[in-house]
Amino acid sequence: MQLGMIGLGRMGANMVRRLLQAGHDAVVFDMSPSAVEALVKEKAIGAKSLADFVQKLPTPRAIWLMVPAAVVDRSLADLLPLLDAGDIVIDGGNSYYVDDIRRANELAVKKLHYVDVGTSGGVWGLERGYCMMIGGEPEIVRRLDPIFAALAPGSGAIDRTPGRSAARSTAEQGYLHCGPNGAGHFVKMVHNGIEYGIMAAYAEGLNILKNADIGKRTHAVDAETTPLRDPEHYQYDLNLADVTEVWRRGSVISSWLLDLTAAALAKDPQLAEFAGRVSDSGEGRWTIKAAIDEAVPAPVLTTALYERFSSRGEAEFQDKLLSAMRYQFGGHLEKAPGA
Amino acid sequence: MQLGMIGLGRMGANMVRRLLQAGHDAVVFDMSPSAVEALVKEKAIGAKSLADFVQKLPTPRAIWLMVPAAVVDRSLADLLPLLDAGDIVIDGGNSYYVDDIRRANELAVKKLHYVDVGTSGGVWGLERGYCMMIGGEPEIVRRLDPIFAALAPGSGAIDRTPGRSAARSTAEQGYLHCGPNGAGHFVKMVHNGIEYGIMAAYAEGLNILKNADIGKRTHAVDAETTPLRDPEHYQYDLNLADVTEVWRRGSVISSWLLDLTAAALAKDPQLAEFAGRVSDSGEGRWTIKAAIDEAVPAPVLTTALYERFSSRGEAEFQDKLLSAMRYQFGGHLEKAPGA
Amino acid sequence: MQLGMIGLGRMGANMVRRLLQAGHDAVVFDMSPSAVEALVKEKAIGAKSLADFVQKLPTPRAIWLMVPAAVVDRSLADLLPLLDAGDIVIDGGNSYYVDDIRRANELAVKKLHYVDVGTSGGVWGLERGYCMMIGGEPEIVRRLDPIFAALAPGSGAIDRTPGRSAARSTAEQGYLHCGPNGAGHFVKMVHNGIEYGIMAAYAEGLNILKNADIGKRTHAVDAETTPLRDPEHYQYDLNLADVTEVWRRGSVISSWLLDLTAAALAKDPQLAEFAGRVSDSGEGRWTIKAAIDEAVPAPVLTTALYERFSSRGEAEFQDKLLSAMRYQFGGHLEKAPGA
Amino acid sequence: MQLGMIGLGRMGANMVRRLLQAGHDAVVFDMSPSAVEALVKEKAIGAKSLADFVQKLPTPRAIWLMVPAAVVDRSLADLLPLLDAGDIVIDGGNSYYVDDIRRANELAVKKLHYVDVGTSGGVWGLERGYCMMIGGEPEIVRRLDPIFAALAPGSGAIDRTPGRSAARSTAEQGYLHCGPNGAGHFVKMVHNGIEYGIMAAYAEGLNILKNADIGKRTHAVDAETTPLRDPEHYQYDLNLADVTEVWRRGSVISSWLLDLTAAALAKDPQLAEFAGRVSDSGEGRWTIKAAIDEAVPAPVLTTALYERFSSRGEAEFQDKLLSAMRYQFGGHLEKAPGA
Repeated sequence: MQLGMIGLGRMGANMVRRLLQAGHDAVVFDMSPSAVEALVKEKAIGAKSLADFVQKLPTPRAIWLMVPAAVVDRSLADLLPLLDAGDIVIDGGNSYYVDDIRRANELAVKKLHYVDVGTSGGVWGLERGYCMMIGGEPEIVRRLDPIFAALAPGSGAIDRTPGRSAARSTAEQGYLHCGPNGAGHFVKMVHNGIEYGIMAAYAEGLNILKNADIGKRTHAVDAETTPLRDPEHYQYDLNLADVTEVWRRGSVISSWLLDLTAAALAKDPQLAEFAGRVSDSGEGRWTIKAAIDEAVPAPVLTTALYERFSSRGEAEFQDKLLSAMRYQFGGHLEKAPGA
Repeated sequence: MQLGMIGLGRMGANMVRRLLQAGHDAVVFDMSPSAVEALVKEKAIGAKSLADFVQKLPTPRAIWLMVPAAVVDRSLADLLPLLDAGDIVIDGGNSYYVDDIRRANELAVKKLHYVDVGTSGGVWGLERGYCMMIGGEPEIVRRLDPIFAALAPGSGAIDRTPGRSAARSTAEQGYLHCGPNGAGHFVKMVHNGIEYGIMAAYAEGLNILKNADIGKRTHAVDAETTPLRDPEHYQYDLNLADVTEVWRRGSVISSWLLDLTAAALAKDPQLAEFAGRVSDSGEGRWTIKAAIDEAVPAPVLTTALYERFSSRGEAEFQDKLLSAMRYQFGGHLEKAPGA
Repeated sequence: MQLGMIGLGRMGANMVRRLLQAGHDAVVFDMSPSAVEALVKEKAIGAKSLADFVQKLPTPRAIWLMVPAAVVDRSLADLLPLLDAGDIVIDGGNSYYVDDIRRANELAVKKLHYVDVGTSGGVWGLERGYCMMIGGEPEIVRRLDPIFAALAPGSGAIDRTPGRSAARSTAEQGYLHCGPNGAGHFVKMVHNGIEYGIMAAYAEGLNILKNADIGKRTHAVDAETTPLRDPEHYQYDLNLADVTEVWRRGSVISSWLLDLTAAALAKDPQLAEFAGRVSDSGEGRWTIKAAIDEAVPAPVLTTALYERFSSRGEAEFQDKLLSAMRYQFGGHLEKAPGA
Repeated sequence: MQLGMIGLGRMGANMVRRLLQAGHDAVVFDMSPSAVEALVKEKAIGAKSLADFVQKLPTPRAIWLMVPAAVVDRSLADLLPLLDAGDIVIDGGNSYYVDDIRRANELAVKKLHYVDVGTSGGVWGLERGYCMMIGGEPEIVRRLDPIFAALAPGSGAIDRTPGRSAARSTAEQGYLHCGPNGAGHFVKMVHNGIEYGIMAAYAEGLNILKNADIGKRTHAVDAETTPLRDPEHYQYDLNLADVTEVWRRGSVISSWLLDLTAAALAKDPQLAEFAGRVSDSGEGRWTIKAAIDEAVPAPVLTTALYERFSSRGEAEFQDKLLSAMRYQFGGHLEKAPGA
C-alpha cells in the first residue's frame, strides 16, 4: 500500500522506515529538503513541494501528518485545497482530541476523511513497533489496516492475555480502532496521563530510598527544624542502580519505564546531567480536564502533573505566601538554604 | 494563684505578662539572666537557679515549661529531683503527644502530675489571649483553672455559637480540657495540621490569581511547551492586596489567616523579602502519621505538608528522575529556566 | 438609585431587601408571581412581565440578574431586545468568567454594558452584607457604586489591615472592582476554589480527631488488615463540638467557616442528618482548569474537589480495578464491610 | 544446601517447591500437619514439632520464616531457645524494617544472625521466580547465596540494561543484598509504596476512559449539579479490555501490572465480582512515614494510599462535615444518590 508522510522528524522518519521495511511504498515531504533526501536514499519517494507530494500519491490518497500539534491546523490549511473527495488525512501526532472532532467535521464537509492516531513508542518505535490508538470511521480505518499492521509491534514475544476470547481484536497486534473521531487521541491522552502518574510513583519512591541515609547526616537544631526522632532507622546507603535492576526481575512493579529508569541510573546514579526542570506536553493537562468534566477523581494523575509544574518553579509565589503568613502569626523567619 | 514559668522566650515571657496583668503571681526562670531581669521589672519574682526557682514556689507547685520541644526531656530531668509529691508540671510547648503519654507515666511513678497544653496564638497571644487545648487528670486541670482563665482570650467580642446548650464549657472562654494526658497536644497537633491545609488553600488560590495575566506574556513555541489555547481568557492584572482585603469583609472564606495574608500583601504585594523556603515544625508531620495509623484519608493536609518539603528543594532528585525517564523514552531534553 | 432585579430566589430577594433598607428603589421580576408579591409588600415595585419590568426602569437602566448560571444566557436572550443603548446588565450569579467575556462582547455590539459580580455571603448576606468581586468597564462600575455600597457589609467592626495606605479602595467596604469583564467572576471562582480547600482541611482534621479512639476498638487480625502498632496512643474520646468552639477563640485557625462548623457540631456531633454526598458547583472545577492553563500547581484545591467527587461514589470503578489487580497478583480477596 | 522453612502458606510452600526443583534440601514445618504432609510428598523433609524441625537441620542452621508479619515475634520467641550460636534466621515475610533492626540486635546478643528478605512475586513466584531484596551481614548473606539464586528468577529472557558495567551484581539475577539489617524490608516497603502509586495511576486513567460516554447520559439540571458544558466531547464507548491489551504492546506504559489489569478486564470488563473495598497492608503506610521522616515529598504515593482508605468508607465523617458546612452557609441540601 502507498502512504504519504508529511513531517520527517524523528517520529515521522522512523515510521517511514518501518513501512518501507514492511514492503510498503511511501511518498515523503518535509519543510527541510535534507530530511526528504535522507529517506529517498532509503527508497522512499521524495516530494519537492506539497503539490508535488499530492500529485505523486494515487487516489484515494492516504496522507499521514506527523507534525507538532501546534502546526496541524496550518498544515491542513495548506493541504486541503490540493485534495480530492475520498482522500484520507491521518493525524498521528499529539493533537487534543477536541481538535480532532472539529477537524473531522470540517473535512467531512469536503467529503474528506479524517483519522486520529495516538502513537506511543517514542524513539524506540522503529525497533519495537508503535502502539497505536485510532479514532475514525470504521470503513476508513479498515482500509488503512495494512499500514497500521506494519507500524505496530505485532504480537511478538508478548504472552497472550489469559481469558481473552478466541475472536481476537487487532489490540493483540498493538493497534486498536477505539471509536469515532477523537477516540484515538482521547485514549492516547489518558495513556500519557497514566504515564505521568507511573513516572511520579517511581520517582517519589526512589527519592525515599535515596534519603534512607538521613540519620547519618547532621541536622540543624532550632525551632524551625523538625528533629528526626529515630536517626538509627535511617542509616542505609542504597544503590539505586542495583535496586531498580533487581525490581526488573520478577517484582510486581516491573515495567518498561522501570527498564528505562534502571538504564538512566546505570549510566549515572546522580543523574548529574539533569537539572530537574520537567516539561509537560498537553496530554497530562487535558487528561485532568477530562477527569473534571466527567467528575471522576484523579488525584494521583493530577498530583503528578503538578509536581512537574513545581519542578519548574511555578510554586514560588505560593511558597512565599506561606512564609509571609508564618512570619505574620509567629514571627518565624525563613531559613537559608543548607542552614 | 502562683505559677512558676521556665522558659522566657517570646511565648513564655508574654504568658507571664498576661498572668501578671490578671493579678496572678509568677516565679520565673530562664537560662538567660537578662530574660529573668526583664520580667522582674514587670513584677515577676525572679529565680537565679532551678533550685532557687523551686524553692520560691509554694507546694503543691504548679510549674509551666515553655521551652522548645527538643529540650523538654532535658528540662524535666533537671527539674524532677527537686520536686515533691503532688507538684504539677505543665508542658505548654509543642511536644509530640506520644511523649506526653510517656512523661505522664514517668511522673506518676513519683506521684507528680503532668499536664500537656497545646497553645495557639503566636506573637499575638499577649493581646488576644491564648487558645489552649489541655490534656491531663480532671482534678489537676481543674485546680489550674485560674491560670487557664487568665491566659485565655475569654468570650470577648466573639458571638456565641447558635445551638450550644446552656451548660457551657470553658471552650467558650478559649480553653478546653480535651481528655487524659496527650489529648491537649493531640488536638493542638491536628490544629496545626489544619493550619497547613488552610494556608496552602489561600496560597494556591492567590497564585492562580497572580497568574491570571498569563495570556499577556509571550510563550516559547516548541514541543516541550504546552501552548495556551485561549490567551484571551488570561488578561487580568489583579491587585492581590485588594482582593484579600475584600474577602475579609462578608465572604465565606474570611478568617484570621486571611487577615494576616492581607496584611502581608498590603506591605509588599511581591513579598520580595521572602525566598519561599517554608519550614515545618513537627505537628504537620505527626498529624499525617496519626491519619495513617487511623486509616483516615487526609490528602489535603498531607499535600500541604509536602508543598513545604518541595519548597525547600527536597523534590530535586525525583524531578531529575522524571527528566531522565523522558530523555530515555523520547529523547526529550530539559529546557533551561526562562527558555 | 433605582435597580431592576430579575430572579427573586433566596439571594435575589434578600439583596432587594438590603437595597430597600438602604433607601434605594427596586423594580423586581421573577417567573413566580408570588415571589414578586412578597417583595411588593416590602415596598419594591413589582413587574408582571419582562416588558413591564423594563418599562418601569428609568434609562439608562441598571438591571441585576440573579438567576442560576445555567439560565443566564436564556434570560439575556429574552431581555436584550427590550433594552436601549446605554443600559447596564449585571450578572450577579455564579457564571463561568469565560461566558462573561463572550457576553460582554455580544452586548457591546448593541452598545449595552455588562458587569459581572461574584457575590459571596450565602444565606447570611442580608444580615452581614455581601462581599462582591466586580468585573467591567471602570466608568460603568463607578456609576453603580451606590448599589454596591448598599449591598456590601461596609467596614463595620472589622479592623483595618495594618499597613494599608491612606488611599483606601472600596475593598475595605467589602466590594472591589477587580478588572475588565470576567475579572469579577474569575476572582469569585478562585474564592470558591479556596473555600473547598479550607473546608476540606477542617473536615480531614476533624476526622482525625474523631478517630483518636481507634486504639479502643477491636480490629480484625488477618493478612488484609494492617495492625495498629500502638493502640495506647489512640485512646481519646474527643468532644468535637467543644474542640471547634475553643478554636474559635484566639487560635490561628479561627474563621467564619469554623464558626459554622462549630454550629453544626453543636447541633449534632454525629451530623446524622447528612449522608456525606457532597455536591460541587462549577467554580471548584473551573479553578482547577485555570490552574492547569496557567501551569500553577494547585494540589490542595484539586484534592478537595476530588474528595467531593469520591463522596458521591465516582471512584467506585477505579476501586474495583485496584481490588481486581490485587486479586490477580496476590490472590487477595476483598474484605466485607465491617469484617 | 539445606534450608529449614517455617510457614507453609501459599508463599512458603511454593518457595520450598522452587528450592526442591533446584536440587536443594528442605526441612519444613507448619502449625498445620497437612501442609507439612503435602510437601513431604514432594520430597521435602517434614517435621512434627519445632524441636524436631531444629534437630533435623545441620548446624549452622539456615531457617526461613514465612509467616504473617504479626506472628514473627511470637515465632522467634518459640524458636530462639532451640537454636545454637551461628545459626541464621531469615524473615522472608512483610515485616516492618524497624522490627528487623530491633530483632537483629536481639539475636546478635545470642550470637545468632538475622537476615531480612523482602520478597515480591506473589502467587506467580513459583513459575516466574521471586524478586528478593535482602538486608543483613555481608558474610551471612553470601553464605545463603545458593538459596537466593534458586529462588530468584535468574536473568532469563529479560534484556540486560544498557550501560551496566561488566562487574555484574546479583541484581541481574533477581536478588540483591541491599545493606545491613532492615535494608531488605526497607527497599521492599518502598517497592510496595510505588506499587500502590502505579496501580492508582492505571485505575484513575481507566475510570476516565470508562466515563468518556458521559455526554450521552442525561443529567439533573439544578443548582447542585455542575452542567457539562460540551457533551459532544464525551460520546465514546471505549472497550477497556482492548485498550489495556493494546497498551501492552509497544506503549510507554506497558508493565506487568498492566498485563494483570488486561487479564482482569478480559475476564469481566465490569469487574462485577468486586465491591471496590481495597485493603492495604502495612508497607504503603510505612513508606509514607519514611517519606515524612526524611522530609521527602511523596504526594502520589500518599494519595494512592488514601484512595484505599476512602474506598473503605473511612472518609464518611469528613464528607458529612462538608455537607454540614454547605448547609450552614448556603442552605444547600444534599442530593440523594442517583438524583
